[in-house]
Amino acid sequence: MGDQYEVSEAGVEALTIPALRWQEPPEGPVVVLLDQTRLPVEEVELVCTDVPALVQAIRTLAVRGAPLLGIAGAYGVALAAVRGFDVEEAAEALAQARPTAVNLGWGVRRAAAAYRAAAAGGPDAQAAAALAEARAVHDEDIEASARMAAHGLELLGELLPGGGHRILTHCNSGALVSGGEGTALAVALAAHRAGELRRLWVDETRPLLQGARLTAYEAARTGMAYTVLPDGAAGSLFAGGEVDAVLIGADRIAADGSVANKVGSYPLAVLARYHHVPFVVVAPTSTVDLETEEGSDIEVEQRPGHEVTEFSLPYAQGPGAEAGTGIPVAPLGAQAYNPAFDVTPAELVTAIVTEAGVVSPVTRNGLAEVCSTSRWSKSRSGNGMMAE
Amino acid sequence: MGDQYEVSEAGVEALTIPALRWQEPPEGPVVVLLDQTRLPVEEVELVCTDVPALVQAIRTLAVRGAPLLGIAGAYGVALAAVRGFDVEEAAEALAQARPTAVNLGWGVRRAAAAYRAAAAGGPDAQAAAALAEARAVHDEDIEASARMAAHGLELLGELLPGGGHRILTHCNSGALVSGGEGTALAVALAAHRAGELRRLWVDETRPLLQGARLTAYEAARTGMAYTVLPDGAAGSLFAGGEVDAVLIGADRIAADGSVANKVGSYPLAVLARYHHVPFVVVAPTSTVDLETEEGSDIEVEQRPGHEVTEFSLPYAQGPGAEAGTGIPVAPLGAQAYNPAFDVTPAELVTAIVTEAGVVSPVTRNGLAEVCSTSRWSKSRSGNGMMAE
Repeated sequence: MGDQYEVSEAGVEALTIPALRWQEPPEGPVVVLLDQTRLPVEEVELVCTDVPALVQAIRTLAVRGAPLLGIAGAYGVALAAVRGFDVEEAAEALAQARPTAVNLGWGVRRAAAAYRAAAAGGPDAQAAAALAEARAVHDEDIEASARMAAHGLELLGELLPGGGHRILTHCNSGALVSGGEGTALAVALAAHRAGELRRLWVDETRPLLQGARLTAYEAARTGMAYTVLPDGAAGSLFAGGEVDAVLIGADRIAADGSVANKVGSYPLAVLARYHHVPFVVVAPTSTVDLETEEGSDIEVEQRPGHEVTEFSLPYAQGPGAEAGTGIPVAPLGAQAYNPAFDVTPAELVTAIVTEAGVVSPVTRNGLAEVCSTSRWSKSRSGNGMMAE
Repeated sequence: MGDQYEVSEAGVEALTIPALRWQEPPEGPVVVLLDQTRLPVEEVELVCTDVPALVQAIRTLAVRGAPLLGIAGAYGVALAAVRGFDVEEAAEALAQARPTAVNLGWGVRRAAAAYRAAAAGGPDAQAAAALAEARAVHDEDIEASARMAAHGLELLGELLPGGGHRILTHCNSGALVSGGEGTALAVALAAHRAGELRRLWVDETRPLLQGARLTAYEAARTGMAYTVLPDGAAGSLFAGGEVDAVLIGADRIAADGSVANKVGSYPLAVLARYHHVPFVVVAPTSTVDLETEEGSDIEVEQRPGHEVTEFSLPYAQGPGAEAGTGIPVAPLGAQAYNPAFDVTPAELVTAIVTEAGVVSPVTRNGLAEVCSTSRWSKSRSGNGMMAE
């Protein structure tokens, strides 16, 4: 690996197509998604005209990432409302599409609460209220991304005063998970723009390769100096002193500061501790679930074994890959352990960067405090998300 | 994951086709290899009639694994000698086919030394001597496997007196790497036969998936209860208390007890330490290189990036996969970091199990002692392998 780096002027846009947008063609409103299962080979958009299509897109990971799932959930409720479907049923289906990501249910509840609150005005007013709330969720996420990036950049400067950061990341946490530029990857991008990013180490992130496919795609588009690696090779980088900090996103943060994120995050936290490297989590306060007391209370989604025992990406096999349709990489009938997430205890997390500020050290009180100062705390308590 | 286990009576043979054999058809002697790049989908044999074919098979990992590379190197020298090629040239090409595996050079040197020592008898006697030495290397490895399995089983009994072992392994270290039943996997197999193996956790081992493809293949054939997992999911198993011991092989062990093994082994050692789980290395003394003083002196093979950025297994793409022929899993032109091995320092290794006994704690003196009592110490010192 070369030691030289430079800030490329080429490519400052992370995405040429936004990860999610609301459109209103003459046929009626739709939610349009950039199909993330087809990246980086194809840029294909999925048009969802109803909630079942959106639920399917969430389940197959065509749309994914904690903040973006919140936006998708809110627009899903708005879609049902504007198109005249049963909003309560839609809200329930959306909230249950994936169990671990707290933002999904949070976005759904915000739009559904706005829908209910406008009941006196009739169906049109209710639909308009749901859509306005979804747009607010979207806009707030854009702003939250920018704030997280600024807080995170400042934190990196404090933790690593020498500059020239070599940052290791896992899974994808950029513009593909957000209305804005994302969470952890937004911080790396801010460092890149500030001329402070020497190297972005990209864990490929098995089994679905969100690092190799999506983070590398975003890194290439924004001109970052990046290198993809097998997840197991991260240890060699730590041992060689080539990692200055780990930056990851989160799918759910419990009240005690435990962080659920893509499987493979916890081993990085242990390696980072062993090598005295900062391990930083970047997530909006909407990812913090103060009703989940401890890490052990977080439900971890178990995904199908064939994601591990077969190689099956949609651009290789055609859409909707099911067991038996991929290229086998294990004996027929092999059993696989395929948790989508793991949980990193607070004591291994150097800092949690939110849009409302940085929590470090990570304590129950510190986390509660930053959540209470967030602009969302009112709406969160108003729909049962907060325990207060 | 179920907690029940039983010893299956079905399938006690790890392989229906041996990983390597010497044959003498009328056309002349050949080295026949089970092509490991095609497992578990196809059982295809490669017939090597000359050393360049064997070197190619070693480089493409059709034949792999430390002990088996020693056998292959020795038979390669014999093949050149019996067929009348330049033996010194063949020995050099074989020894350099892969840089990290010490056994390869060791097997080559043993057969070449026997060839040279018989110079007085003329070419036929020299060829016969080289072949006899290769057969001896092969036979000794079968015996060494059995001894390692016995020593390892005893060690497991001491470390885990409760029985019902749940063992995590990485890469492949069974009958496919050996003339016998292998190294680490031979110990797991012995535990299975003794009714003491509750679960074999099989790291898939990216990028070339030797765990999912090869260890699972052997585990299925021998009736072990096994489960494949993405390398990054091992952390979740440790955190959940579901790993009783880690057993891995080795490609080179330095004089200070540092262990070079498949990339991804070092992160397991760090996780094992963090969770107070024994981390056991199983390797014949021929893998110990007393001339390599420290772990940092071990040269780590860097393999092509396209193994990471493209999905390309021979049974998916046809043989001899090169860059650009696989299914892309990263943006075109993405750079990859792809070390074949990592190095685990002795302080993280609970024990090294050899055919000559167990070294625990792992110290320079303890390692030197077990090597000096090995039956190979004389032949090693006789061909320059030992520093004495």
